[in-house]
Amino acid sequence: MTLKNTRAGNYPEWYQNVVSEADMAENSSSPGCMVIKPWGYGIWERIQNVLDEKIKETDHENCYFPMFIPLSFFQKEAEHVDGFAKEMAIVTHSRLSMKDGKLTPDSELDEPLIVRPTSEAIIADSFSKWVKSYRDLPVLINQWANVVRWEMRPRLFLRTREFLWQEGHTAHATHDDAEQETIKMLEVYKQLCEEALATPVLAGRKPEHEKFPGAIDTYCIEAMMQDGKALQAGTSHFLGQNFAKAANISFVNNKGQQEFAYTTSWGVSTRLIGGVIMTHADDEGMVVPPRIAPYQVVLVPVIKKPEDAEQVMAYITRLQNELKTQLPFGEKIRVKIDKRDKASVDKFWEWTRKGAPIICEIGMRDVEGNKVMVKERLKLGTPEGKQIVAFDDFVTTISERVENIQKAMFNKAQERLKQNIRTDIATPEDFRKYFENSNQWIEDGKQGKVAFVRGKWCGDPETESILKEMKITIRCIPFDQSNTEGKCLLTGKPATMDVIYARSY
Amino acid sequence: MTLKNTRAGNYPEWYQNVVSEADMAENSSSPGCMVIKPWGYGIWERIQNVLDEKIKETDHENCYFPMFIPLSFFQKEAEHVDGFAKEMAIVTHSRLSMKDGKLTPDSELDEPLIVRPTSEAIIADSFSKWVKSYRDLPVLINQWANVVRWEMRPRLFLRTREFLWQEGHTAHATHDDAEQETIKMLEVYKQLCEEALATPVLAGRKPEHEKFPGAIDTYCIEAMMQDGKALQAGTSHFLGQNFAKAANISFVNNKGQQEFAYTTSWGVSTRLIGGVIMTHADDEGMVVPPRIAPYQVVLVPVIKKPEDAEQVMAYITRLQNELKTQLPFGEKIRVKIDKRDKASVDKFWEWTRKGAPIICEIGMRDVEGNKVMVKERLKLGTPEGKQIVAFDDFVTTISERVENIQKAMFNKAQERLKQNIRTDIATPEDFRKYFENSNQWIEDGKQGKVAFVRGKWCGDPETESILKEMKITIRCIPFDQSNTEGKCLLTGKPATMDVIYARSY
Repeated sequence: MTLKNTRAGNYPEWYQNVVSEADMAENSSSPGCMVIKPWGYGIWERIQNVLDEKIKETDHENCYFPMFIPLSFFQKEAEHVDGFAKEMAIVTHSRLSMKDGKLTPDSELDEPLIVRPTSEAIIADSFSKWVKSYRDLPVLINQWANVVRWEMRPRLFLRTREFLWQEGHTAHATHDDAEQETIKMLEVYKQLCEEALATPVLAGRKPEHEKFPGAIDTYCIEAMMQDGKALQAGTSHFLGQNFAKAANISFVNNKGQQEFAYTTSWGVSTRLIGGVIMTHADDEGMVVPPRIAPYQVVLVPVIKKPEDAEQVMAYITRLQNELKTQLPFGEKIRVKIDKRDKASVDKFWEWTRKGAPIICEIGMRDVEGNKVMVKERLKLGTPEGKQIVAFDDFVTTISERVENIQKAMFNKAQERLKQNIRTDIATPEDFRKYFENSNQWIEDGKQGKVAFVRGKWCGDPETESILKEMKITIRCIPFDQSNTEGKCLLTGKPATMDVIYARSY
Repeated sequence: MTLKNTRAGNYPEWYQNVVSEADMAENSSSPGCMVIKPWGYGIWERIQNVLDEKIKETDHENCYFPMFIPLSFFQKEAEHVDGFAKEMAIVTHSRLSMKDGKLTPDSELDEPLIVRPTSEAIIADSFSKWVKSYRDLPVLINQWANVVRWEMRPRLFLRTREFLWQEGHTAHATHDDAEQETIKMLEVYKQLCEEALATPVLAGRKPEHEKFPGAIDTYCIEAMMQDGKALQAGTSHFLGQNFAKAANISFVNNKGQQEFAYTTSWGVSTRLIGGVIMTHADDEGMVVPPRIAPYQVVLVPVIKKPEDAEQVMAYITRLQNELKTQLPFGEKIRVKIDKRDKASVDKFWEWTRKGAPIICEIGMRDVEGNKVMVKERLKLGTPEGKQIVAFDDFVTTISERVENIQKAMFNKAQERLKQNIRTDIATPEDFRKYFENSNQWIEDGKQGKVAFVRGKWCGDPETESILKEMKITIRCIPFDQSNTEGKCLLTGKPATMDVIYARSY
């Protein structure tokens, strides 16, 4: 019962099938925007919980800033850019009136407002009021919010006009403090991806032409999707004094001198869910890592005769209650009894499509035998994916399996990533040939035809046009540099810098 | 050290002083919008946690819907309203371009988009796709989101152009199911206010002219502020089939017939924080109920000689660790050590202004005496508000105090509410005289000059103009009706309906 489209058959269509069959999100009547449905939003809530805890452990506090940014805040930025034009939602009127039977925007604003595409400018404006002395630093804040970028080719989770994210913004007394913060938060994102999303990532610095506008340095984590493309999973920006100067975030340092603060910003978004799908889903549908699964265990009653119902439900309730005391990952197991008025086989397939980590169908045979049939979504269709467990062993086995599935999913994705970083391509000719055959999905455990290439880059600005023409990008300059001599894979010039080349989302 | 303004002196200015001295929120450079700062946002997070748990316990799931609503969605609504005009933010352009050195909105949209003032219309549109059969019902969803209403006289937390809220939206197969849901969620809000915000509320139904547009019935909870004015703390709407008909949410019922669903919606917002302030704050600043306090206990080191620092900090860390195991309200105690480089007396006053429930200043004398000085914010300045406790009793006493302060705050507010509902006003003349003397704050335990009046209302539509002229409102038709005969306090006509009259926010 595979999906209408498979990864090998039509990867983009397969992605849409997964999202829709797992009932995670849908396109809305509001153009370019998505509705995040309970299963998708539940995953986002789990991601939020894990990350919010890490953000607070690292001494950040949550705030909320306005989503409307006065147009004048963009003026300075625009003056430095030739042919400035940005796709953003602009509020120009503040009343809706009926005129000649037609609803019409009315009451034009003196100054148009931009719906935040990101909040550096409006937050720096607040920081400038908060910071007077070195004693007021660091300021370490975060907000969970919606943002808008006027995408022309929207795609659920990956690229929609409105999306949800968190954005951290900090101000520091010194260059080094701010730079350390930037790297620290990138590390937090890496942990989030690897521990919670079971998604290995490559960490590094963006090349000059891929930096966030106004940043001194942009750091990023990059994940590999099953079609060999890269997905930027999170970014962390060291902004130096650029935004502090523009917004006048200045303070008296401990020597009594007036100075500008050093700021950072960092964010991850609902795009991560798109990354989880393309890392873990298979041809049967979604597979959710247990740590971020809204339910880790789903109990499906199988009632063949109405008179069995009471006994089966009592047995299931006992199982549920036992499970609720267990604490893998330091949290209670999230368990759902699916009581809906539907055939149990349909329920099984629904939860399979949704990728619930463990599904147990429970009927009179289990009650009588004091046992439970445990099915693991990750091993669907294999003999090991379907095991009979005694009632007394149930709680222990579930608790272990929840943790083991998480590890297995990470290991599988890590193996794929390792297998698919080519490091043996040495010349621009071979490099070009390699990327000509694109958009292949990677079969599990095998090396795909097109994935990432790790190789040299000379760093010349002129290489940007070669990248564009080849439709590839430099994903990052990895932290672990080899410091060897070699040839730039784009120009053939001598180069020492290692970079990751890939196609990307 | 009272605030610049007191409740008796200038109540509206006192309110602004509390918000600003507690560092809860500030006005933003984005006109009419607020920045919610960490202490204010931390309170909102606690409110969210308590309410979100209740929303999920009652089987609702969280989703996220687009914030942009196409203008055409309002057309139907507008056609039924004479002189329709609504203050709403309208997006008309999707690009910001530089033209002649000036940033200009560009790329006009075919159809303007409204930033959601509430989401009934866009959510009903989704429901119409989700619901086909009675088996798909009920649909029980909620979203946490920002909404925009173009307020002309903004006031922090109470009335800002953008604010945060949750909005529940449900669809049901029958009239009774939907009506029960409406009442159930009102009860959830009442519990939230009474248990977590320590704020007693009156529950009832809104009169016809105060209903949500499109609702069959609007139910509400109303709280009494210390100036005797009412604050609507939450509403729950029974929408009948009105929205279902407009958006075509129809289904095949269990008899095979096509039918329209019955829907509800219900919401509370960051306005609740304004209510908490005006219920609990005093002339020294904010007082936060422990259940929603970001920190319930603040430990302030008092270090007179540098050589004592190590011992004092070690002692405080021991206290903190002991506290972390305690679980009043089923959660761990939230404790903060204030390590900032500031005088301890300034720290004490900062936390007093913020209204942290318990503040302990700890120095060498405490270390040597193996004791702790425990100060309760609620009893500031009284002998009982300041007690020395042995180290071994510390954890128990804090755990008890946290729960007792919560109860004491609720009792105090409930006593005030009880004392200030006049039920002895019998004629329109006395009623008018009573409300002529307005805007008084209520001294604790004493009956204020102007508060609520419970009395009869004839229900005639013409009374609306009398209410307007008197600048009062009917807050609700309470559920506990006396069913006695009497005279309408507005017209003198015979009436049986009891209502609550009050000035309001």
